Amino acid sequence: MSDARLLSALSSLSHVAKQLEVPPPALPALGATCVKLNMNENPFPLPPVVKKSATAAFERHYLYPEDDNVGLREAAASAYGLSADQVIAGNGSSELLGLIYKAFLAPGDAVAMISPGFSFNRKLAMLHEAQFLEIGWGQDHSLPTQQLLSGPARDAKFIVLANPNNPTGTFIAIAEIERLVAQSDRLIVLDEAYVDFAPDNGLRLVNRYPNVLLLRTFSKSYATAGLRIGFGFGHPELIGRLRTMQNLFNMNVIGHAVGMSIIEHRDAFEENHQYVVRERELTSVALSALGFTALPSHANFLLARVPEGHDGAWWQAALQRQNVLVAFFPESGLENFIRISIGTERQMDALLSTVSDILSSPN
Amino acid sequence: MSDARLLSALSSLSHVAKQLEVPPPALPALGATCVKLNMNENPFPLPPVVKKSATAAFERHYLYPEDDNVGLREAAASAYGLSADQVIAGNGSSELLGLIYKAFLAPGDAVAMISPGFSFNRKLAMLHEAQFLEIGWGQDHSLPTQQLLSGPARDAKFIVLANPNNPTGTFIAIAEIERLVAQSDRLIVLDEAYVDFAPDNGLRLVNRYPNVLLLRTFSKSYATAGLRIGFGFGHPELIGRLRTMQNLFNMNVIGHAVGMSIIEHRDAFEENHQYVVRERELTSVALSALGFTALPSHANFLLARVPEGHDGAWWQAALQRQNVLVAFFPESGLENFIRISIGTERQMDALLSTVSDILSSPN
Repeated sequence: MSDARLLSALSSLSHVAKQLEVPPPALPALGATCVKLNMNENPFPLPPVVKKSATAAFERHYLYPEDDNVGLREAAASAYGLSADQVIAGNGSSELLGLIYKAFLAPGDAVAMISPGFSFNRKLAMLHEAQFLEIGWGQDHSLPTQQLLSGPARDAKFIVLANPNNPTGTFIAIAEIERLVAQSDRLIVLDEAYVDFAPDNGLRLVNRYPNVLLLRTFSKSYATAGLRIGFGFGHPELIGRLRTMQNLFNMNVIGHAVGMSIIEHRDAFEENHQYVVRERELTSVALSALGFTALPSHANFLLARVPEGHDGAWWQAALQRQNVLVAFFPESGLENFIRISIGTERQMDALLSTVSDILSSPN
Repeated sequence: MSDARLLSALSSLSHVAKQLEVPPPALPALGATCVKLNMNENPFPLPPVVKKSATAAFERHYLYPEDDNVGLREAAASAYGLSADQVIAGNGSSELLGLIYKAFLAPGDAVAMISPGFSFNRKLAMLHEAQFLEIGWGQDHSLPTQQLLSGPARDAKFIVLANPNNPTGTFIAIAEIERLVAQSDRLIVLDEAYVDFAPDNGLRLVNRYPNVLLLRTFSKSYATAGLRIGFGFGHPELIGRLRTMQNLFNMNVIGHAVGMSIIEHRDAFEENHQYVVRERELTSVALSALGFTALPSHANFLLARVPEGHDGAWWQAALQRQNVLVAFFPESGLENFIRISIGTERQMDALLSTVSDILSSPN
């Protein structure tokens, strides 16, 4: 590992974060009627063994959760080929994203995001009085590497890159990301919320580059958006400081237990991931026949350009009147797009037949 | 309500918090072997109806939790005689305490706590680069009102007061707190984590004084430390800003469902609260017979001075060797005290017999 890159990443920490000690390893504790396709949820039942883990954990309702998420962090470390001090567990990856902003940004500092991206980043930057630099994707949704290395983003405390990206669904080859990470002295926050629906992932970069901080969530690919389970993987010096700054008992006993059980039984989700990929391609083709153009997606959603004549807002509203919910992003040149999550076959059939009905009805 | 006091409390918000808009009301979403007496947990089973609510909620594992905790906030508002915009729901009250620090403190600012108090406040102040002013309790654990009104605490952005206090268990009459609140232009954060074991509470102050921000938790009196359910009650202008700054989906679906079910069935916990009060008094008397002196407590724990000859650290270690866990607070002149949570009868019998064994064994 490059010490210079590590030192450079550490030097981006805020004044207060720099003064924190990395904590020693903790000791084990003793002891709807809508077709909802707007939030990229994964409406599939959990394996019975995972449900059982939740029922058993509920009996510990009166006990505080395990300190520093020790057991869950160790399970994730073991599953992903890392050490526990490279892992932080979050109440969803959104908690961890907020923690990164808190740790790195002082008022007036800058943060960069490849745009369009996850709009929650804009709010976090605002809450930290930071400049929010939006760096547009390159041609054909390629990584704008030169702009990240030489433009205003050089002064950003960190760069947020989602892969696959939300809301576009596009996927950047890991080799391309590695070239950026190897050349940049900036911290790259690689948000892999949707990576289990993609052909590759950036996990191997964590042990290679101390300026990579990887975020994962079980919300989408493990069908647990309601339980708030997320992870951050990175260098122990960064992860340790984030853990020190994290709130007490950030996850509850159900999140812990289900997280650990999913990790143990993650093979059981393979079929679901394959289904989502298959259904995504079928839906893309079906939408095309209806006049929509979906971007090639590697996530559990499609960003689709709507047919000429109406914009995305119109389509979102028209679908909602028929109890079909999709997402719309007016910012960033996406006025003519809607984002459609991949749900059950029944949900996708309902979406397609509703679109068809709208197209054939007199406006 | 006094506008001047409100304006004064608002003027204590940090630069960024002042610029935030109060959000409009959100629309409803569619759609162990140890005797563990060290963390003030309440080891009692939940009513079956509350358990059923958790089982039902688990079926929503794949859906994001309700935005802005709307249903839970409305339920709490209705139960406590408030409006929903006076209520914020937290992933435990610890999340809300952290949020208050974030909202009010810039580097170099001061925060005051009546000391000894909940030590987590010291860490939060450190994380926000704030001065941490510890104001000692008055004679016989009375409120140090004059010191709070005229001393260095006058410059604190807010004052943290726990009632009943942790770790002492002492309770201040609400009238005395009201006199402080009425005279002070500082925001008073009144942490009532243990108030359900006390003879009175400060809820009525919320509608009277905009400079009161009340914190409650279901961790102790509702036996759900593992599920992370907490509330803040205060003026909508303050609560609204805190809600705006709060992270996305801060609670999971189990916390929501159990919180709402407990609120609906809170009468079912009366018996448990009465048991804790009874057992607390019995334990105090029994400890006295063994040479310990417990402070009068209105919480679900006792702070007990240990017999001469050994200090609190010794007793904590001696008990732990026998698998009995109690808390010890070396700071703040509490070297000769241990804090003992009120558990089940069986746990309290085990504690007392272990203490007796230690006393009668040759050292």
